This record gives sequence, C-alpha cells and structure tokens, in this order.
Amino acid sequence: MERPRHQGMAKNTYMRWRLPLVCLLWEVAMIVLFGVFVHFGAEADAHWEEEKREMNLTSDIENDFYFRYPSFQDVHVMIFVGFGFLMTFLKRYGFGAVGFNFLLAAFGIQWALLMQGWFHSFKNGKILIGVENLINADFCVGSVCIAFGAILGKTSPIQLLVMTLFQVTLFSVNEYILLNLLHVKDAGGSMTIHTFGAYFGLTVTRILYRPNLEQSKDKQGSVYHSDLFAMIGTLYLWMYWPSFNSAISDHGDAQHRSAINTYCSLAACVLTTMAFSSMLQKKGKLDMVHIQNATLAGGVAVGTSAEMMLTPYGSLIVGSISGIVSTVGYVYFTPFLESRLHIQDTCGIHNLHAMPGLIGGIVGAITAAAATEDVYGKEGFIKAFDFTGAYQTRTPSIQGGFQAAGIVVSLLMAFAGGAIVGGILKLPIWGDAAAENCFEDDVYWEV
Amino acid sequence: MERPRHQGMAKNTYMRWRLPLVCLLWEVAMIVLFGVFVHFGAEADAHWEEEKREMNLTSDIENDFYFRYPSFQDVHVMIFVGFGFLMTFLKRYGFGAVGFNFLLAAFGIQWALLMQGWFHSFKNGKILIGVENLINADFCVGSVCIAFGAILGKTSPIQLLVMTLFQVTLFSVNEYILLNLLHVKDAGGSMTIHTFGAYFGLTVTRILYRPNLEQSKDKQGSVYHSDLFAMIGTLYLWMYWPSFNSAISDHGDAQHRSAINTYCSLAACVLTTMAFSSMLQKKGKLDMVHIQNATLAGGVAVGTSAEMMLTPYGSLIVGSISGIVSTVGYVYFTPFLESRLHIQDTCGIHNLHAMPGLIGGIVGAITAAAATEDVYGKEGFIKAFDFTGAYQTRTPSIQGGFQAAGIVVSLLMAFAGGAIVGGILKLPIWGDAAAENCFEDDVYWEV
Amino acid sequence: MERPRHQGMAKNTYMRWRLPLVCLLWEVAMIVLFGVFVHFGAEADAHWEEEKREMNLTSDIENDFYFRYPSFQDVHVMIFVGFGFLMTFLKRYGFGAVGFNFLLAAFGIQWALLMQGWFHSFKNGKILIGVENLINADFCVGSVCIAFGAILGKTSPIQLLVMTLFQVTLFSVNEYILLNLLHVKDAGGSMTIHTFGAYFGLTVTRILYRPNLEQSKDKQGSVYHSDLFAMIGTLYLWMYWPSFNSAISDHGDAQHRSAINTYCSLAACVLTTMAFSSMLQKKGKLDMVHIQNATLAGGVAVGTSAEMMLTPYGSLIVGSISGIVSTVGYVYFTPFLESRLHIQDTCGIHNLHAMPGLIGGIVGAITAAAATEDVYGKEGFIKAFDFTGAYQTRTPSIQGGFQAAGIVVSLLMAFAGGAIVGGILKLPIWGDAAAENCFEDDVYWEV
Repeated sequence: MERPRHQGMAKNTYMRWRLPLVCLLWEVAMIVLFGVFVHFGAEADAHWEEEKREMNLTSDIENDFYFRYPSFQDVHVMIFVGFGFLMTFLKRYGFGAVGFNFLLAAFGIQWALLMQGWFHSFKNGKILIGVENLINADFCVGSVCIAFGAILGKTSPIQLLVMTLFQVTLFSVNEYILLNLLHVKDAGGSMTIHTFGAYFGLTVTRILYRPNLEQSKDKQGSVYHSDLFAMIGTLYLWMYWPSFNSAISDHGDAQHRSAINTYCSLAACVLTTMAFSSMLQKKGKLDMVHIQNATLAGGVAVGTSAEMMLTPYGSLIVGSISGIVSTVGYVYFTPFLESRLHIQDTCGIHNLHAMPGLIGGIVGAITAAAATEDVYGKEGFIKAFDFTGAYQTRTPSIQGGFQAAGIVVSLLMAFAGGAIVGGILKLPIWGDAAAENCFEDDVYWEV
Repeated sequence: MERPRHQGMAKNTYMRWRLPLVCLLWEVAMIVLFGVFVHFGAEADAHWEEEKREMNLTSDIENDFYFRYPSFQDVHVMIFVGFGFLMTFLKRYGFGAVGFNFLLAAFGIQWALLMQGWFHSFKNGKILIGVENLINADFCVGSVCIAFGAILGKTSPIQLLVMTLFQVTLFSVNEYILLNLLHVKDAGGSMTIHTFGAYFGLTVTRILYRPNLEQSKDKQGSVYHSDLFAMIGTLYLWMYWPSFNSAISDHGDAQHRSAINTYCSLAACVLTTMAFSSMLQKKGKLDMVHIQNATLAGGVAVGTSAEMMLTPYGSLIVGSISGIVSTVGYVYFTPFLESRLHIQDTCGIHNLHAMPGLIGGIVGAITAAAATEDVYGKEGFIKAFDFTGAYQTRTPSIQGGFQAAGIVVSLLMAFAGGAIVGGILKLPIWGDAAAENCFEDDVYWEV
Repeated sequence: MERPRHQGMAKNTYMRWRLPLVCLLWEVAMIVLFGVFVHFGAEADAHWEEEKREMNLTSDIENDFYFRYPSFQDVHVMIFVGFGFLMTFLKRYGFGAVGFNFLLAAFGIQWALLMQGWFHSFKNGKILIGVENLINADFCVGSVCIAFGAILGKTSPIQLLVMTLFQVTLFSVNEYILLNLLHVKDAGGSMTIHTFGAYFGLTVTRILYRPNLEQSKDKQGSVYHSDLFAMIGTLYLWMYWPSFNSAISDHGDAQHRSAINTYCSLAACVLTTMAFSSMLQKKGKLDMVHIQNATLAGGVAVGTSAEMMLTPYGSLIVGSISGIVSTVGYVYFTPFLESRLHIQDTCGIHNLHAMPGLIGGIVGAITAAAATEDVYGKEGFIKAFDFTGAYQTRTPSIQGGFQAAGIVVSLLMAFAGGAIVGGILKLPIWGDAAAENCFEDDVYWEV
C-alpha cells in the first residue's frame, strides 16, 4: 500500500535489513562483552554461604536483594509501563510510544550494566553485578526515556538505538564525575537523570529541527482513550516515585526518609498543578496534558534531597513550587521554545524534567549546605553525606558548592553531548520519516 | 463552544478562580501545619543509627520500612489506579474518574497524615511519621474514594475537595473511637473504611438527590473499551487486596495470615459472583458491572477478621457469601434504592462496600468472640487482640461485643456526618453541573 | 436479539443454570475440602511466637512472608493482569479474555492449593499453607492460562472450568513426578508450567479442531486500542518475570541470581524479536503480535536454569535465541500448524511457551550437567541442587540426565492428558459457540 508523499522530500523509511542488522550486531556485542566482563556479585553467587560467614551475617535476609528488590521492581515498572504509556497520548503513535520505549530500554539496560559496571563495580577485571546494578541500569535508561519524550514521533527506531548507545555512555561518564569526582549526592537523580536527560534530549531535538512539522499537526493531538492510556503511565510513575528516589539510598533510615519526602512532595504537586491548570485557561477547564505530566514534577524536584533531612514540610513546599513551574511551562514556555528557539518538544520534557530537575539540583545543594550535626546526629551526619576517608573534612557548605557544581557539569555534558549526538542523528541514513508522516505508527508498524 | 441548556436550571460550572483558590489555600494550610507539627519518626530520621543501638537492633532490616513498604506500594496502587480506573467504566467520564480521584486522594493523604497523626502518633507536640502513617493515610483516603463512587459524575471537583476535608476528619474521629476507646481490631477496615465510607457516601448522595437525573441517562452507561479500562481497576484492587488487609497487621504471623485469608476469600468470591451474574439474567449472560465490582466484596468482607484465626476455610465461606450478596445487590437493591429511597448510587457502592463492610464487621465480631487460647496459643492470643494493660482482663466474648459496637458507631458517624456534609455540599456555590450535564467530562475538562 | 445462524449447526450457548451450577457446586466442594484439610502453616499461625522460639529465630523478619511476599504479588499480577490483558488483543473478545481468565484462575488457585498441598505440604492429615503455597498455586494456574491461550475465543466458560479442574490435577501429578521422584530442579517452571501447559493446550485445541473457523476470521484480528491493552499484559509479564523465576528459589543468593539471569535474558530477547519481526516481513515493518509475545520467550527459556549459575552472559545467549525461535514460529510455524496439523492456536502459545519451554528444559539440563564445585563452591553446590539425603551421591551429569527426563515426562503427560481432556471437552453439553460466533463476547456477555 503506497502512502502519498506530499511536498516534503521523499524519505526512505524501509527498516528491513537496517533495523535487524543494528539489533543483532549490538546484541552480539553485548554477549561478547558480558562474556568477558560480567560476573555475579557476591550476594548473587553460589559462594554466598561462605561469603555470609565471612561477612558475619546471621541470616539470608541480610542479602541486599531483600533491601532493594521491591523498589527495583517498582522502578522497572516506571521505566517500561510508566514512560511507555505516558507517551501513548498521541492518537496514532501508541505502538511507537510503548514499543520503541521497550526496544531502547531493553538495549539500554544491557549497555548500562557494562558502562556503569566499569565505573563502579569493577574488581579484578570483572564487573560484579547485583540488584543495585539492575536499579542503576534502569535509572540510566530512564534518562534516555526522558530524551525520547522530546523527539517522540519524529525519529526512526534506529535513531533511537543510536541515541541510546551514546546517551548511556555519556550518562555514565557524567554520573562518574558527579558521584566519584565531585562526591555529590544524587540518589533520585535530579541532576544525573532528569537535568542531564532532559537537556540532552532538548538539544538533540533542536538539532533535528523540522521546519515543516505543522504538516502532521493533526496527528499531534490526543483522542479520548489515548489520554486514558497515558494516565496509566502517569499514575504508575507517580505512585512508584517514592521507590525511585529511595531505591539506592543507604539501608535503613535513608530509604525510609526518601520514600516519605517523595510521597509528600508528589501529593502537594497534584494540588498546585490542578490549580494552575484551571487558572491558566480562559474557560477554567482542566487540561489532561498538565495532569498527565506536571503532577510528576514533585518527584523530580526532590530527587537529590529526598534522602536528606528535607523534612515533610520542606517536601510539600518543593512539590508545590514544581507543580506550578511545570504547569506554567506547558502553557507558556513550550510554545515559546518551539516558535522562537526551534525546540520541538513533543512531550514537554522541558516542563516535566528539565526545570524540575534544576529545581531538584538546587534544593539538594541548599539542603546539603544547611545540614548540621544537630539535625542529623553525629553518626547520621557522616553517614548521610559519606564524609569519610578523603572527604572527612568536607563541610556542609562546601558540599553544597559541589552539589551546585554537579548541576553545571550535568548541563554542560547534556548540551555538548546532545549537540554531537544530534549531529550524528541528522545523517540521512537512519530512516526517519518525512515531516508529514511524523506521529504516525503506520510508518514503522503493521497497523 | 456553547453547550445547549435544557429544562434544568442553568448552573455555573465555571471553575477558574474557585478551584485554584481552594487548592492553593488548602495546600498553604497543609504546608503551615506540616511545618508546625510533622517530623520524621525514629526509623526515618538520620538519628536512626543511635536509635538502633538503643533499641538493641542488630540490622537495618529491622527497620519497619522493610516490613511494610511493599504492602504500602500495593495499597498506593489500589487507591490511585484501583479506585481511579474502576470508575472509568462510564463512557464519557474517564477523565473525571481518574483525575478527580487523583486530586481528592492527593489532598486527602496530606490531611489524613495530620488528623491521624494527632490521634495516634503525637509525641511532645510533634507528629512522628513513618511508613505505617503513609499506609494509614492511604486507608483513610480509601474511604473517601468509596464515597466518591456514590456521587461519581454528579459533583464538581470543589465539592469533592470539601467532602474530602470533612470525611477525612470524621474518619479519623471514628477510627479513634473504635481503635482506642472501644479497643476494636479492624486492620483491613471493614468498619472504619468500608462501612463508614460507604454509608457516608450513600447519605451524601441521598441529600444531593437529583430528580431529573434521567436526563443524562444515555451517558450513565459504558462502552466496550471503557469497560476494559475499568477491569484494570478491578484487577489491581483484587490482586493487591491481600496487601491491603495485611499492611498494618502485627509483624510476622499476623501479616502472613491476613494475606492468606484475603487471598482465599477473594478467590471464592469470584466464583459466586460469576454464578449469580449469569443466574440472575434472563439470557444467562455475564454482566461486566458484576464482574468489575462484586468480585471484590470478598476482600471487604474479611477486612476485620483476616488477621484473626479465621482459617482458609472460613475465608472461603465469607468470600462466597459476600459475592452472592453483592451481585444480588446490583440486580435488585440498586434499582430499589434509587426508585424508592432516592439514593442514586453511581458505582453501586452499597453492594461493593456497604453490605460487605457490614458482613466484615459481623464476621470480625464473631471470630473475635470465638477466639480461644487453644487456637491462638497463650502468647498469640494476647498478641492478636492486644489484651494487655487496661485490657488484660477482656474476654473474647466481651471483645466480640465491642467489635459489634464498632459497627454501630461507624454507622452512626456515617449517617450523621454524611447528612451534615451533604447539606454543605448542597449549597449552590460549589459549581456542580445541571442534571443534563452529569456524567460528562466536557464540563470540567478540555476534551 | 436473535443472532443469525449460518451453515454451522445451531449451538446452545445458554449459560443460565449450567454455569451457576458448576461454579456453586465446585465452590461448595472447595469449602468442604478446605474445611477438612487446610490449616495455616507455622509461620502464618498465631502460635508463631512459640514456633519462633523453637526455631531459634531472633526476629519476625525471618518469617518466610518477608522473603517471598513481594515476589508473590508480582506473580499474582502476572497471572491476572499479565495473562488476562495479553489476550485482549482480539477486537471483540476483551471481556472473555480478561473475565474468563479471572474465573478459571480464581477457581484454579483453590484447587491447586489442595492438589499441591496433598503432594507437598501434607502433615498429620493437614495441608499447612503459607506464602510459598500461594505462589505455587499461582504457578499451577499459570499453566492453565497458557493452555487457555490456545483455545481462546472458541470455548465456553464451563469448558474452561472443566479444563482447569483436570489440568490442575495433572499439573500437580507431573510436578510431583519431576520434583520429588526425579528430583529435578525447575523453579521457574520451564518444564512443569510452560512445556506441560503449552503442549497440553495444543493437544486440547487439536482435539477441538473446528474446520469452519474461517467463518469468524474477521473477528480474529485486533484493532488499534485492543493492541495497546494487550501491551499492558505483555509489559507486566515481562517486567515481573524476574520475580516469577525467583519466587520459590532458595533464600539468599538463589533468589538474587534468578532475578538477574531472567532480567538479562528478557532484555536480549527484545532485541532479537524486534530484529526478526522486521526482517521476516517484506515491508520491514514491526508486527505487534511478535512484540506482544516473542519478547517474553526469554523469561520462559531460563525458567529452569535461572537459579543455577547460568551467568548473565549465558542468559543473554538463551534470551537471544528464544526471541528468534519464537518470532520465526509466529511467522512460519503457526500457519503450518493450523493448515497441516489442524492445530488452531489462537495466541500462538506454541511460539511463546512450547518451544521456549523446551529450550528452557534443555538449557536447564545442560547447566546442571555442567555444574562444578569450583563454580558453585562446596556448600553452594550441594545447596543449589539439594544433593543431600538420598541424593547425596548424585553427580551433575546424572542430574542433567534426570532434568532431560523431566522434559520427556512433561511432554508425555501433556499429550496424554490433553487428549483425554480434549475428548471430554468435545462432549456437546458444555455450551460452546458455533464457528461463526467464535471470538465474540456477545455470546456469553451483556455487551
């Protein structure tokens, strides 16, 4: 069945051979690299019985699996159902939203296990993996899912795989700089996941600017049931965000505290989002776009500080502000970005991830700088910020400065990386669709 | 776009300013109150290391977080996806179902943390919160979601927020009377959540009776895909109900037992629901309304007794009966309530929550009254019913009596509270729609 | 409303009395049998305090509930939402897919608790149940859900209940032979659940062959939104499969390892599925049928070996291969099975469960045969394969042989059982629809 081709140049979106080749070659590469590098960590290895004795653990329940596995599964749902369904709001791009998100995330987690493994779990030539690595791989891919939101409907699956390859790599480098070199705290990833992921994606979509995109304007909207599918994504992200922000925090109080702070921030965010969604429309009606997205900004904005002593009250304030900023962004900034800066941001990730991510980084820096031994307790203070070894003498205000530096580094990595990767994706070999065929599943899917 | 206005009096459903004002003022109030009152509990506070030593705990895994967090997340899903999607069955009210449920629950959990905190976690002028408080806040809001089911499609979002404010308050008072003054057991909330929530909602909808509701009769039905969306809600409620009933039970055997009893009761309930759904229709075909709702009655009906030694066999009986009662209710009682008692119960909460809630209270009273040291063991008996301190001399049969009193108190609170709140909601200032515009998202949402 | 009846003989699909009778009688039987046999296990009984002391456990967290409950809930979601929604892809059979799956699973878990209980948890005349029994009951029912996939749309609810009764029985016998008599390892059920369930279902559908099924060909396809509903099922199966394969593994490293291996296998499987889905179509477009199903083959194919030292690298290989085999199966084998062997396999379970199940059995046999004390450690080796007591002298290669025997036994049980049960279901008393009314909810549901 021939699709008519209008004014835009005819583009070759034929995926047979190209897509299979990329998928298969890359999977073979993964197999080889896993074969050479990846081993089970001590807690997943059959030698655990001996290990347990050596570590003086009295029970199997002390295995890290039981501290983190429930959170891992929640995060897993956020990546695959949360992000996947959040993007199904387009009337004719549901397969692409869920399906390509599935594809890029499935590849990304493998590559992330390697990249993050080399940086953080490398011992005697081997990457030792356990449940925490699985969570971190999901986190890393989360930043790719965010960037995907900016270019949704405008790229081929090959472009997405190429972007994933590069973005996971850059993410891991940035994460290493922040966590290891700057010794920055960012358990929920306001900086490493959201700020980096969003500005990376926004830069990529800027480079891939399509001047004739209004040719597919009619397909950029939603229909009634596609908006309900998107609410499945929204709610799973919203509900499980406490798990996201607490998944890799220290055992005990830190995980507990992260979950509470995030719960509070998200609850407040819903109210301010609803308020501004109604207030900013002449007719005073609520807009599903805001409800689907801005209600989540509260989770992003406490990503750095949730495990600190932000307090429930502080969380409500941060959540309230981020809901307002995000909703205002959808109403005013997104049109501005598109018309003036030529940034076509399909899902409005600037409002959901970029600005709240910056807020999150700043709140984290302030919360760290304001930390006192009185509030944290002597031991708690050292443990919360890991002020041991080389960092024994670091003070809260210096830590705050490093936290702020982490924001800047993430932004620079995102802009530079996004520009380079955008340039690569602009090459005319990846099979993206012409402007009039964007936001249309029929291009890459049997419909 | 002007909507035609028929015979009903024209109503002002314009939300701009009114809804934002309520949302923002209330969120500010929450922030102030949280600032004054809410602190992290010991297990979420950075002083946990010292606390751990004092409590003589050897491992972080003893933190209550690890006993309850997985159940908390399941309950969280039930409140936001479970109740939210269960109510999407209406063909043109999916946004309102999911969106307003989201709004009222997000506000309600904040207010519940305060109200329940003052009653149960207040120490030296501070409310100390941990994961159990989050679960209880979700529970409290669950009773509001239930009441929402009765008035679904007929109220403005402001009315729902007003109702939430009052209902959470009354819920907390009722819960305090039952748990603290009557020393009643009700871990899964047959009385506090379901009986109270349902009769409260039914009273409210009675007060808000709309004589001309048949004007929107065509929108009160479902369409094929809206019924499938509703099944998402049903199944998540059904699957996670064992977590609901066990979430705040005592550590160890009580949580374990609650989950098993609930699992059994729910399984049996599905079979009797299917049986009666087919049997009560002339054509013998199954009705999705029954499958979506009555299959859940088994979870409601063991809400009080699940943590007791109800036994799997007893659970099957309770589940079987409640499935029958609930299905019969949908076929015969709901039309009767509407035509004779002027109780317009959109979702049929009388069948899903009210009657099974009463069954649950009664089964709980009987199970408690029948308890023996032989069945529970000497220590288990004391622990299960908390027969310590002032209650050291309470016998099972007296406990059964107090349990029964708990049902009566819950009913009285629901009727009285519902009448007052219904009266408040009847004021013509809240922006509800005219009868011919009920069950229609277009009134409050950009569609 | 009369439905036209074409050439096929008119069939009586009237369910009133028949369906209620079966449901109610069977539920009564369950109640009686539970009353006679089922008790709480020690960890769910109120005597737990004493038990804890006797077992020398220091904390409630040692209760098996906390080791397995999160995984149980994930498995529960897979059975009811995963399988249920996966089958909603048909345009007019969404109610039947979700609803009948709900019915048969709710009955099946009760019967499985008894059957498996008699074989595995029987002590002093009582079946003692705990969370592990709940998981195993869900597992057993999983095999029925698989078989349901082959006959989806062509059977009455009564036939499904009859099939469930027999299949659960045979499953339990087969499982007993494998686990107890052959002393085979199969924690994720490649053999007991997938191979047995799939070949059982394929045999049943062969016996129930409908020569005129092309009369309902127009209803065998999907529509846009039914494919999105199906993706909900797919993703929940995919995401939670690590929980499935690890749910009943030994505490500690075995659970941890199972989850990691499954995670890796599934990730790889997505890439090869996408590759072959595009490659095998002339137009190079992706096919939702493959994405919905073949992406899951990686979970099936490590069902036996995931808890062994398969290694992440080995998992990637197994996942890659099974994705390819499964996709090729959908393109070439399914049409062949239908046209040549008269096996009408609605959901293609041959590709998703049968072949990957066989791969899983074989990989398990090889992995077991290749085990060494060096890789597992001395204690780990004995623990992993339970080489204690009567099996103290069993060597890895002998274990590999028994594993292989387990595949053969499962196949024989499936063929023999499927033939008998298929014969029973062919009796003209169960109320199945005529060929032209297959795949149509209107037959058994109020639509």
